[in-house]
Amino acid sequence: MKPEDRFVEKLRALLPPAEGILLGPGDDAALLEWHEPGLVATTDLLVEAVDFLPGEDPQRLGRRAIAVNLSDLAAMGAAPAYFLLAIGFPAERGEELPLAVARGAIERGREFGAHLVGGDLSAAPQILISIAAWGRPAPSPLTRSGARVGDAVFVSGHPGEAAAGLRLARTMEAFSGTERGASPRFPEISSEHQTRLLAAYRDPLPRVALGRALAERVIATAAIDVSDGLGVDAGRLARASGVRILIEEDRLPLSRPLISFSEMEELKPADLAVSGGDDYELLFTASADGAARLEERPEALDVVVTRIGRVVPGEGAVLVHRGGEREIGDLGHDHLEGPR
Amino acid sequence: MKPEDRFVEKLRALLPPAEGILLGPGDDAALLEWHEPGLVATTDLLVEAVDFLPGEDPQRLGRRAIAVNLSDLAAMGAAPAYFLLAIGFPAERGEELPLAVARGAIERGREFGAHLVGGDLSAAPQILISIAAWGRPAPSPLTRSGARVGDAVFVSGHPGEAAAGLRLARTMEAFSGTERGASPRFPEISSEHQTRLLAAYRDPLPRVALGRALAERVIATAAIDVSDGLGVDAGRLARASGVRILIEEDRLPLSRPLISFSEMEELKPADLAVSGGDDYELLFTASADGAARLEERPEALDVVVTRIGRVVPGEGAVLVHRGGEREIGDLGHDHLEGPR
Repeated sequence: MKPEDRFVEKLRALLPPAEGILLGPGDDAALLEWHEPGLVATTDLLVEAVDFLPGEDPQRLGRRAIAVNLSDLAAMGAAPAYFLLAIGFPAERGEELPLAVARGAIERGREFGAHLVGGDLSAAPQILISIAAWGRPAPSPLTRSGARVGDAVFVSGHPGEAAAGLRLARTMEAFSGTERGASPRFPEISSEHQTRLLAAYRDPLPRVALGRALAERVIATAAIDVSDGLGVDAGRLARASGVRILIEEDRLPLSRPLISFSEMEELKPADLAVSGGDDYELLFTASADGAARLEERPEALDVVVTRIGRVVPGEGAVLVHRGGEREIGDLGHDHLEGPR
Repeated sequence: MKPEDRFVEKLRALLPPAEGILLGPGDDAALLEWHEPGLVATTDLLVEAVDFLPGEDPQRLGRRAIAVNLSDLAAMGAAPAYFLLAIGFPAERGEELPLAVARGAIERGREFGAHLVGGDLSAAPQILISIAAWGRPAPSPLTRSGARVGDAVFVSGHPGEAAAGLRLARTMEAFSGTERGASPRFPEISSEHQTRLLAAYRDPLPRVALGRALAERVIATAAIDVSDGLGVDAGRLARASGVRILIEEDRLPLSRPLISFSEMEELKPADLAVSGGDDYELLFTASADGAARLEERPEALDVVVTRIGRVVPGEGAVLVHRGGEREIGDLGHDHLEGPR
């Protein structure tokens, strides 16, 4: 268990029972009674040099900050509605900075039905972006706790690309200010692949349509968004459901850009896919019936979905490979461990 | 107009119209259609060394952070319901720190009907606390824009005490580590007065009961919470309502502790009351009818309320004193101007 998860457990012990809270801290978002149809709410705090690299474009940071929150709503199958945006920044960087952050968040949020309704500003030594977002729950919301033995395990998109993008961005940051300029080329990887990896990190797409389809078409038994790494988030879903999750290395949807990057860096692409983090893909489980419904209209999900494993009795998350298996439930990022 | 207000104006220009947003950025909280009975939402970000002194007790910080948000809901006449809590902190300060912050926020929130439902943690170079809170609107919500010429102007509690408390706390911080220890005594002020001033700064009481009464008993025509200073917040209310606010210096509710402190520091207590900030009192306007209803059951408001001025045609906020009058609409703290 990661320190952040221990924190949530201790926090839950502090909370008195309160009417109307269907699901409090510990899932992707809170689920609340609020007359009809209820309320799904979440928050994420992004800190410069911890959760994103210094010098990133402020408007893109705003897009990313709202996307990270929408990803939590997506993991509940909720329809985004509104958000609040608080920004801290050094006054000497000028008032255009928070406005650019807001512009990015407003634009990206609107694409997914989320509207800015308020916020706060504070001076700060570095850029801080805190968003709280809420939406309307699905008739049967997705939680982390519904996975059952025998379910299949799926993931959307291509986990690991964002981690590769972060490493590319870091290298570019290290080179910026030198003669090579801010956009060094890596001859080993096509510029198309570089662009895709950087976009996966800097401008993730929240899987809102997928989440809603998984809930409304009763496809998934449980879901979580992969923010800290496929391994650690699979471990969280397994723990909440009281099951063990097996992920088969051979089934991981490793993309060509990820493989090119891994070859250049002499890394294993599966390691990046399992422990990279920042993917904002959905990891979910489905019964045989649900999996059949998933295959009926895969194009309606707006993103490729890959079956990567299964749910078995026991606990934890493991990666099964030709040489055996290894625990991956602690592989990933913890928000208390500082910069990635 | 303060830089923060200019920011809000620019931000509003960015926002496309969206259904269901009855009141977006620019008031104390957002007011949203959300089936019955709607939703009132607000957020505040507190940054160590900007919005609070380094070394403050974490549990008390949590109490203060939720109180600041509840004060925004109070200014709308809303009934608090839920909140989300995001905390950034240096990992080396230990996991007990965010738990203490959460404990303080949970306890203080519960007193006013607000329950913690989720949150986020991040590593950060300093303590950051971001809360988003929401509640149920009053049948006729209070806004900043309803003041009319001829209304009387009221304020709750004793503005200026928090600013005096902040100055005391700063002096104590400067002395900490010396032989005088963390609690130096100021012989010029009784320890009871010192305690009261420090509490006004560190542990403000949100005026939730007052706000609800002002809305439900249709007492107030407009309201704002005094977070940045009576002057600047009166200026905001005047601007939103399209009126001018006159505050009479002789009517300001200057408390004995504030006067003792001001004498010691050779300050004018009225200056602290007008430009101090951090009061979290309610400034509101009322018609003659509303003022009469206010006087019917003053004890039900849970706090002393003082008539301090009136609404006249024009713009801005002015303090009227024996020697004349002066503009006070820009007197106070701006969140973009760094530490107080």
